[in-house]
Order: sequence, then C-alpha cells, then structure tokens
Amino acid sequence: MTDFTATKAMFDLPEGVIYLDGNSLGPLPRAARDRVGAMMQDEWGQMLITGWNKAGWMAKPKALGDRIGRLIGAEPGHVVMGDTLSIKVYQAVASALELNPGRKVVLSDNGNFPTDLYMASGLLKSLGPDYELRVVDPEAVEDAITDEIAVLMITEVDYRTGRKHDMKALTDKAHAHGVMTVWDLAHSAGALSVDLAGCGADFAVGCTYKYLNGGPGAPAFIYVAPRHAEHVRPALSGWLGHEAPFAFDLDYRPGHGIDRMRVGTPPVIQLTALEAAMDIWDMADMASVRAKSIELCDLFIAEVEAQCPQLELASPRDPAFRGSQVSFKFDEGYAAMQALIDRGVIGDFRAPDIMRFGFTPLYIDEGDVRAAAEIVTDVMTNALWDRPEYMVRHAVT
Amino acid sequence: MTDFTATKAMFDLPEGVIYLDGNSLGPLPRAARDRVGAMMQDEWGQMLITGWNKAGWMAKPKALGDRIGRLIGAEPGHVVMGDTLSIKVYQAVASALELNPGRKVVLSDNGNFPTDLYMASGLLKSLGPDYELRVVDPEAVEDAITDEIAVLMITEVDYRTGRKHDMKALTDKAHAHGVMTVWDLAHSAGALSVDLAGCGADFAVGCTYKYLNGGPGAPAFIYVAPRHAEHVRPALSGWLGHEAPFAFDLDYRPGHGIDRMRVGTPPVIQLTALEAAMDIWDMADMASVRAKSIELCDLFIAEVEAQCPQLELASPRDPAFRGSQVSFKFDEGYAAMQALIDRGVIGDFRAPDIMRFGFTPLYIDEGDVRAAAEIVTDVMTNALWDRPEYMVRHAVT
Repeated sequence: MTDFTATKAMFDLPEGVIYLDGNSLGPLPRAARDRVGAMMQDEWGQMLITGWNKAGWMAKPKALGDRIGRLIGAEPGHVVMGDTLSIKVYQAVASALELNPGRKVVLSDNGNFPTDLYMASGLLKSLGPDYELRVVDPEAVEDAITDEIAVLMITEVDYRTGRKHDMKALTDKAHAHGVMTVWDLAHSAGALSVDLAGCGADFAVGCTYKYLNGGPGAPAFIYVAPRHAEHVRPALSGWLGHEAPFAFDLDYRPGHGIDRMRVGTPPVIQLTALEAAMDIWDMADMASVRAKSIELCDLFIAEVEAQCPQLELASPRDPAFRGSQVSFKFDEGYAAMQALIDRGVIGDFRAPDIMRFGFTPLYIDEGDVRAAAEIVTDVMTNALWDRPEYMVRHAVT
Repeated sequence: MTDFTATKAMFDLPEGVIYLDGNSLGPLPRAARDRVGAMMQDEWGQMLITGWNKAGWMAKPKALGDRIGRLIGAEPGHVVMGDTLSIKVYQAVASALELNPGRKVVLSDNGNFPTDLYMASGLLKSLGPDYELRVVDPEAVEDAITDEIAVLMITEVDYRTGRKHDMKALTDKAHAHGVMTVWDLAHSAGALSVDLAGCGADFAVGCTYKYLNGGPGAPAFIYVAPRHAEHVRPALSGWLGHEAPFAFDLDYRPGHGIDRMRVGTPPVIQLTALEAAMDIWDMADMASVRAKSIELCDLFIAEVEAQCPQLELASPRDPAFRGSQVSFKFDEGYAAMQALIDRGVIGDFRAPDIMRFGFTPLYIDEGDVRAAAEIVTDVMTNALWDRPEYMVRHAVT
C-alpha cells in the first residue's frame, strides 16, 4: 500500500490551490530544487567534465528508465530516457516498421495526441508514396487491424476524454495479424497500472512531466521488448546509441539492447530533477495508486453531476475504460475554466468544449476533490464564468 | 572589447584547477544555480502549468536562439533551441535534401564528429538504396564538391585537431554547384567568429554545453537561412513546430520560419541554466574573444614546444586554420593526460594519441596558460605519466 499522506507532504503545492492539472504538468517535488542545486554546484561545478563518470551522469538514462519501468510493467534493463516524446514516437514507429518489412500502413486513431500523428506522417512521407498513415475513430481501431497493417500506433489514454484502450486485447489482435505495436503511455505512466511485458507490447514511449512529475520539459522514455532489443535497427542512430561511443568510429554499430535507442548527450539537469520525483514514486505501488485514482475520479463525477446539470460527462463512466482524468463538456468551458483557476481550482481546457481535471493520488486527496467540486458547483450554479475577461483566449492554455 | 577579468569572475571554477576542457563541457556560471533554483521554486512550484505563458517558458527557445545567433552571425529570428545536436543534424540534413530534389549524395569528411556521420547515414539508409553518404579526407572536401552532391555536411572545426574549414570558400563553391550546406558549429559557437549570414550558409546546428557553458546536456540550436525558412519542410514534424500547436489539429501545417524546426516540449530547466551562461556571453564580443583565444593558443604552443620535444603539434600552426583548441600527439597521451589531471590541468584525450587543450578566454587567462604549460613541462620532462594507474583506461573519458 502507498502512504498517500507521506507522498503528499513531499510536494511543494502553492497555498490556496487545488491542482487538478498534474496530467499536463506535475507539481514540484520538495526535494527537487536542492537536489538540482547540489548536482550543479558539486558535480558540474567541481567535477566538471569528469562528472560524466564520477557522478554517474552517463548512467542516469538507464537507471531512471528502470525506475519508470517498474511502474509500466517493463522488464529491467529495457527502458531508457532521452529526447522528447515526439522524437521517441518517431524512433519507435520507424524501428517497428523496419521489423515488419513489406507492410506499409501505420494505423492510429483520431483520439491520439496530434504530435504522434504529425511525427508518423512526416516519417511515412520521407519513406515514399507507398506508405500510409491510416487514422480511424478510436472505436474502429480493433476492426481496422488486418494483415495489411505494419504498425499499430496508439496512445493508451485519450488526452481529451480519458478514454482508455484495452492494451492487451489490441496487442493480441495485432500480433494475430502480424502487426507491430507502439504504445504511447503519456497519460498512462504513473496514472494507471500498465503491464507492458504481460501484454506483449513491442514498443512503448512516454513523457515524464505529467503524472511522473519530472518538471517542464523533462525527458521522454522508450521501451523495446526484449525479443526485439538486439534486432531493432534504431532509426535515429546517434553516437550514444553506438556500441562504443568513445571509440569515435566513423561507422555506426548499434549498442546492446535498449542502449541503441539512445541518441545524443543526455539532459543531466532535467534528469536530476526527475530523480527527485522518482524518489517519491519509489514509495508507491501502482495498484494502490490506481485504486485511489478511481475513488477520486468517481467521487468527483458524483459530486459534479449531482450539482451541475450543465456539465456533460465526456469521460467513460466505467473506470475500466478511463484513465486518471475526468472531462466534462460545456459550451463555455474556456470561460468556466478561467473562473475556476481564479478560484484556485486548476484544471485545463481543450478545444472545442472540454474541461479537463486530472486526479493524482500522490498529492490529491478526497478533501481536495470535495473542495474542488464545491467550487465547480459555485461557478456553475451562479454562472461566475460569465464575465468578459474569462472569455479572452490566450495563445497557449 | 570584452572585459575578461569581469567574465572570469562570473564562473565558479574549482580551486587548484586550470580547466582546459571547456571545449567539451564548459564550467558553471556562478549565477546558474540560483537562477535554476528560482525558476524551479517560483515558476514550476508556484505557477505550475501557467508557467508556460506567465513565466515565458514557451518563448525561451527562440529568445535564447537569438542570443546565440548574435555570436554566429545569424539574422535575428532564425535560430531556435531544442533537442540534441544529433537530432538537429538529422533535421538539417533531411530538410536540406528536400530542398535539393533529384540529388542523392551527402558529402562529409572523416574529421567530422562521428554522430553527424551516424545520423546522416541512418537517414540516407531510410530514404533508399540510391542515397549515399560520401566521406572524404578534410583536405579533399573542396574538390569533391560537384553537381552530383545534394548536401555538404561539415563540422567547421575538427574536434580532435582543431583544424578549421573555410566556411565562406566551401559555401561559395557549394552554391556554385547547386549544393545545400549544413554547418555543424559544435566547436565554433563561442570559440571563434562565425558569420553565417555573410557566408550565405543554408543550415547550421550546434550544441551549447561546450564553449557556450550551458551545462551537461544543454540543448542544441538550429539555424535556417531566411531564404529557406518558409520553404523548408521540417523532417521531424513535431507539435511545437505546428502553425497552431494548441489547436490540436490532426494534420500537420508547418509554423512560420524557424518555428517549424521546433519538435517537442522544450527542456525549461536546462534552458534556464543556459540563460545564466548567456548573461555572460551578452557581455562579450566575438572579435575580442577570438583575438584573445589566438593569443592564448599561440602562447601555449610556444611554451610547450620550447620545453617538450616529445609532444608533436597536431593542430594547425596558423591560427587562421585553427579553432580555439590546441592538440598534441603523444603515444602515451592517455597516461600523460591522467597525470596532468592529477596535477590540476584538465584537458582530455582522444584516441589514438591526441592530447587536447581548449582555450576559452571568458575564464582562462595568460597566467593560467603559463601555469598549465609549466605543469605539462614537469609531467613530460620527468616522465610523471609513467605510472601504472595512469595507463588504465576508463570506458568514458
């Protein structure tokens, strides 16, 4: 069991704020600032270039990969950190295509986060006119898996609605048709129980600034199933994926296993901030996090639906088909979210009409959920959103 | 003129160390730790998700790009930060190829840093068997530029010897033959005067953890000439390169100008550390940095050659053909470098026999150079390197 009182105390949360946007950017772990400060002063400052060995900088991407790997059911030694999620999607899809020669269709759905579609589309254009990115409705994915498909590229949890795909069922069907799978865990890692090994997933990728609380611009991770690890030819073949980076050979020879998915020099300062976040995650087990997340989401849905008939639930009601967020539709959702933020309830808005609330048991408890629901009720019942300054949309929300 | 006494005081340099490896990892700016700490506490901690707008996180990649742009002769608004140098090389070469349809050969030289060759080679393999990476000796590059070449991909300064290519002459010849140019400025930015606009360079890329002192894993930069900025189709088409990232469209439409070379979420903590370094660079002009660098390099060569006949100069003697480093060949160079590091002179070693010393006027002065040369003389004259513990090579140096 996870001691959620203990984990909550390890975050630095602003006074007067109920933060329901940890699905977009997780809050600051209390230890992160000092840890990063010490790394900068004692390692970068004093060890200088020797920090790569002496302070273990070069080993951080795999060490952190394993700590995240525990949360997503990966075999030890098969997850590595680096780059951004966009880059890791590209790497995974390109590598998966290579493992499935002769097929030229990548299947995804229109609930996927757009950058996954953009990166895959750009990749396929570069490979030639025979390649196709086929995008269907989320509900149509299962039927669209055929012997024609090379790679199934799916984000497990929809970033807008929280709708959750069945990883095991889709992976099984994919494999029955000779299809490689790439799972994007952006809204899964740290949000719900993921069992990559148990599902037989081929590739997985994810980011660490949402539920994992690594900080703005924290690096991404990539998983390659052990059965592929020594066969995959990395699409972005950088020097740190080389078998012997410091031999400075002119020809590329892939490193062993997941090491070959490394590309360039790792972002040591960001990785150090992420370590402080993973110290908290090391105290948690995903089964209890998931159970608590479902309790919190169900409670929020019940409270809001009882008081706010204007809000229509946009997330699946059955928690088995939902991630760790709750979304409501409301035509004036943008203004309503601004009104909520003004009153200390931070969620976010996704066009055209989605109000999104993330529930993160490491630092959000039942008291927070009840208090947030009361403020939502006040804003909706009294139409507090109906003020001109709440209607002005910013370029970035 | 740059006040080098003032800039030196702005770095936190360890006691008893003469740091001649700033060409590999620059030292810690004194202000960096507090600046990063404040960003973490006041922005990430207190603003949470709203930091993307309120604290200007989203704008940092272009704001920092312009500050670096000044040092490399780029037009304002045409440099953006992100990813690693390996990724930016890939993006630049792929984009340059697209602008030169019908040609299929990328020309480079064997003095290039290996990751550039690895990334280009991986890219070309993915494009098909007709594509070729042609790697010649550095001295043979000019003659190898023909109408057959699509892209000339060159690192201006050789990471081992400091040998410097003539950017203007090679770019002119390239353009005369319809060849696009990609310049890697890893050992140029902050090391010497670069005039991208004056040379008519098409693309340039570089890293910021060497001469620019951004810290371990600091992000890379990319430049696209204004004449190409609205025509280039970005090879790695991520959501932050989209015309309207927060519209979450399913289809990719490139953003305007250099914005389209952005890919994923920027590493805000690393960018904040880099800001502290750029505050120092803002006080410097490259003409005086270059003049001082040549003085320091020439002084070191003169002192070492006068005292250490065992060391053979591996760098060009004429500063016009040299970057901001001095390399010597010595069969027992690995052991000799370990002996130097033990005595507080930190340079580095590159196989098979190169001892490398970087000269960085922002924090290295003539006194440091004379003191370092004396220690080199002591180590060489008295064969202080000839001890078993100095012979043991580590995996990473």
